[in-house]
Amino acid sequence: MNGAESLLTTLVNNNIDVCFTNPGTSEMHFVAALDEVEGMRCILCLFEGVLSGAADGYARMARRPASTLLHLGPGLGNALANIHNAKKGHVPMVNIVGDHATYHLQYDAPLTADIEGIAGPVSHWVHTSAAAGEIARDAAEAVRQAGIGQVATLMLPADVSWGDNPGGAEPAVAVAPPAEVAAFRVKEALALLKSGEKCMIMIGGREVDSQRGLMLSRIGKAAGVRICTEVFPGRVARGAGTAVIDRLPYLAELAIDHIKDIENLVLVGAAPPVSFFAYPNVPSAIAAPNCRQFVLAGPNDDIDQALEDLLEQLDAVDAKPDVHPLTIPDLGAGPLDAGKVALAVAHYLPENAIVVDESITSGFALFPATATAQPHDWLNLTGGSIGWGLPAAVGAAVACPERKVICLEGDGSAMYTIQSLWTMAREHLDVTVVIFNNTKYSVLEMEFARTGARGGKPGPNAASVLDIGGPDMDFVAIATGMGVEATRATTAEEFNEQFAAAISATGPRLIDAIVPTLL
Amino acid sequence: MNGAESLLTTLVNNNIDVCFTNPGTSEMHFVAALDEVEGMRCILCLFEGVLSGAADGYARMARRPASTLLHLGPGLGNALANIHNAKKGHVPMVNIVGDHATYHLQYDAPLTADIEGIAGPVSHWVHTSAAAGEIARDAAEAVRQAGIGQVATLMLPADVSWGDNPGGAEPAVAVAPPAEVAAFRVKEALALLKSGEKCMIMIGGREVDSQRGLMLSRIGKAAGVRICTEVFPGRVARGAGTAVIDRLPYLAELAIDHIKDIENLVLVGAAPPVSFFAYPNVPSAIAAPNCRQFVLAGPNDDIDQALEDLLEQLDAVDAKPDVHPLTIPDLGAGPLDAGKVALAVAHYLPENAIVVDESITSGFALFPATATAQPHDWLNLTGGSIGWGLPAAVGAAVACPERKVICLEGDGSAMYTIQSLWTMAREHLDVTVVIFNNTKYSVLEMEFARTGARGGKPGPNAASVLDIGGPDMDFVAIATGMGVEATRATTAEEFNEQFAAAISATGPRLIDAIVPTLL
Repeated sequence: MNGAESLLTTLVNNNIDVCFTNPGTSEMHFVAALDEVEGMRCILCLFEGVLSGAADGYARMARRPASTLLHLGPGLGNALANIHNAKKGHVPMVNIVGDHATYHLQYDAPLTADIEGIAGPVSHWVHTSAAAGEIARDAAEAVRQAGIGQVATLMLPADVSWGDNPGGAEPAVAVAPPAEVAAFRVKEALALLKSGEKCMIMIGGREVDSQRGLMLSRIGKAAGVRICTEVFPGRVARGAGTAVIDRLPYLAELAIDHIKDIENLVLVGAAPPVSFFAYPNVPSAIAAPNCRQFVLAGPNDDIDQALEDLLEQLDAVDAKPDVHPLTIPDLGAGPLDAGKVALAVAHYLPENAIVVDESITSGFALFPATATAQPHDWLNLTGGSIGWGLPAAVGAAVACPERKVICLEGDGSAMYTIQSLWTMAREHLDVTVVIFNNTKYSVLEMEFARTGARGGKPGPNAASVLDIGGPDMDFVAIATGMGVEATRATTAEEFNEQFAAAISATGPRLIDAIVPTLL
Repeated sequence: MNGAESLLTTLVNNNIDVCFTNPGTSEMHFVAALDEVEGMRCILCLFEGVLSGAADGYARMARRPASTLLHLGPGLGNALANIHNAKKGHVPMVNIVGDHATYHLQYDAPLTADIEGIAGPVSHWVHTSAAAGEIARDAAEAVRQAGIGQVATLMLPADVSWGDNPGGAEPAVAVAPPAEVAAFRVKEALALLKSGEKCMIMIGGREVDSQRGLMLSRIGKAAGVRICTEVFPGRVARGAGTAVIDRLPYLAELAIDHIKDIENLVLVGAAPPVSFFAYPNVPSAIAAPNCRQFVLAGPNDDIDQALEDLLEQLDAVDAKPDVHPLTIPDLGAGPLDAGKVALAVAHYLPENAIVVDESITSGFALFPATATAQPHDWLNLTGGSIGWGLPAAVGAAVACPERKVICLEGDGSAMYTIQSLWTMAREHLDVTVVIFNNTKYSVLEMEFARTGARGGKPGPNAASVLDIGGPDMDFVAIATGMGVEATRATTAEEFNEQFAAAISATGPRLIDAIVPTLL
């Protein structure tokens, strides 16, 4: 078999059987191998920012990496922002980046670039295969690296792809299990929890699933300490029957206030909390200066084991956790606003739904409104780079075809990777997209004020670059143009009806929700 | 004034008075400064790939750089592909990339990234300002670097932006003129031209303007040598009254044949020609193995001086160049195809139009059809990364508001940076966009065959990722959704009428030209 076939087979042997792609000439032997090797589902995206975000959403829901196939340095560049988001969220990913043939690089053809240089800042592991005989082993190593929660980026020169690999594919490799959390760390955490000082456990990392949430609640009750997630954990189980767990606010000013009394902060998968951005006269660190921050477990450590150990030592294995009841809010009426969208989402949310949230300012009401809705998973933007939501919804829907995906999107964020809609239509993905169409980068109006620039009041030039109306986006037209059925709602009644219809149907739908800014 | 104001003022003092942007929180003080400093036109784009391509198109037409304002590493990543294209085309650009406050970086907030690492592979010059007192001087250096045909990328930490700069702005700086071409090089080139051996001059680089073309034609006639442009020069003056100059074919097989007899290749602004990609059993170098390749002038050298020197020494200053007559082709009729689109474009092309060409396979007929049309400028994709055309048309229209811009786009390329349409509408740019809607990555079907993968015949899986139909894009709906008036043409008669109407109107129009693949 050739290098590309040995690479593909190695990936499939390792249960990496989805490839989100937009290939080019240098990847044609990989593309050809799709018909020689069985078992790889290849999903075309019309822009690389879509496919990297899809690989993120997929891996969060499938709990195993997808692969991507990218075309040279610029293709990787296009994918970069959503690879960044995945990296920050500890989401595994295997990127295959085609390069020119090794002997062709010296000629500096137009598409030649320092691909490793571009890949480095958004990857944990970067490697260029030097020969067809090495690509399968390199792919196996990429799988190993991704397997421990990392972004692995492997460059595949064209001649490595088309050259003969007599050694063939590699079998399934052993991926390292999450690192054990040492007993002394558990002991130290326990001491902090029992110290009598004000203590909080902050959970973060890839996922807070239902069981993990319940364990945390038991620990919190038994030890009499607060439990809180970081601002944007990658995936959280929420709704009826899940544990009542607080969330650290996004705004540094509120977050600082939220934990100002905490003397011991025990971090589980979470990093020490910091402000998203720096602002004049606002501290970067969120915890109080006298707060001790103790890392019980990193995001790739065995968090469940650490929590189980804590539970046992607190004798709280059978403690009754605080869980959310099932309480479905009533629907709103009258002119539409983000709050009424939130009510409808919570009202109609089907059991086991996946919510992808990139609603930014319009989403302030969504999180509380859905806390007691049907049980669901909630995905957050982990790296702060917008244009993630629609792609992540693509990936989540590919990973979980039997679950309804609800994608809650700001209008500005949606336009970053709007091409996602086409892949939703082509693959008939069961995604309901809600666009909060307020014709603003509303978050930036808020941030402008927070930075104190120009006394917090944008002048006309500044205001013009925070505003995305004039012309206003017509998302019904845009979605229809990419094959996705779409409707517009300007009243709560319209939204309620359209959302209910979308939920009861199968396949992609988009609702262009015309809402005022919340701020 | 603060750092941001001193930066903005320095740019304006240096005649950099357009900024294409999509800012974020870390750039808010720069945004605020837009209302404190006069003279900077700030143009919002809904995605960074649009704004970097716009900066490229602007600089080619204005013959001076635009600035960009980008949000952190991911914003730069989104802009990367079109910065790559600009770099490969020797197009000057000044990128300002906001970063976290210097003291905030240690906290590794979600949007923290190695921005210099991302910038390096696509920039000639990279620098991070360390303090507000340094930003104006750093900006002046960026202007100097861009002034010699380079991409300069300057990182602006938020505290550098908001901090006080008591030194204020820098005045206009002296930009180095193009480097003189030494007399001995001209002498050597002359010797080659007069050697009696088969000789060709290949011209490339930023621009082949009308005068440069005429000089080359005179030289060619006087010396009895062929003149040829590289495959994709950045900007070429074409049409009636311009010199008859050959173009090197894109396909390596044809290009090799095109210059197989050439014994001396004199390069003027062009690099030694190479195949775009490597293919099994096709040489990477285009020139024959025994061909001597001599660089008379690099892309940033004083090409005109070198050509004038050659002309004088050939005693050909007054030689009569070969120029294209004005010959307007007749319009086509019947079912629409790419050839009939080419006839209509050539027929209606207004004098002094700017043609932005990213039509890929559908464009094969365009270049010859327009050779004798009204005089116009033609912009090519210089770096091979698609998604450049629509953005470049934005920038060209901003640079030359009195000229009609015709943007000829493949459907696949258009979808990469489709958000460009919104900026065309917002700024009421005089751009007529023609989408060649053939529902294929047609070039990849060709390239698949050329690579010889799977005997040149894609299987069903491969075919599915080369096909962008199902659903077919409706560009009329997509454009309308972003505020651009649009129509669809399926016959030559429809296209002719719609194109004529678009040309006679002012402001953005899009024609969704439904065409079969040419291949």
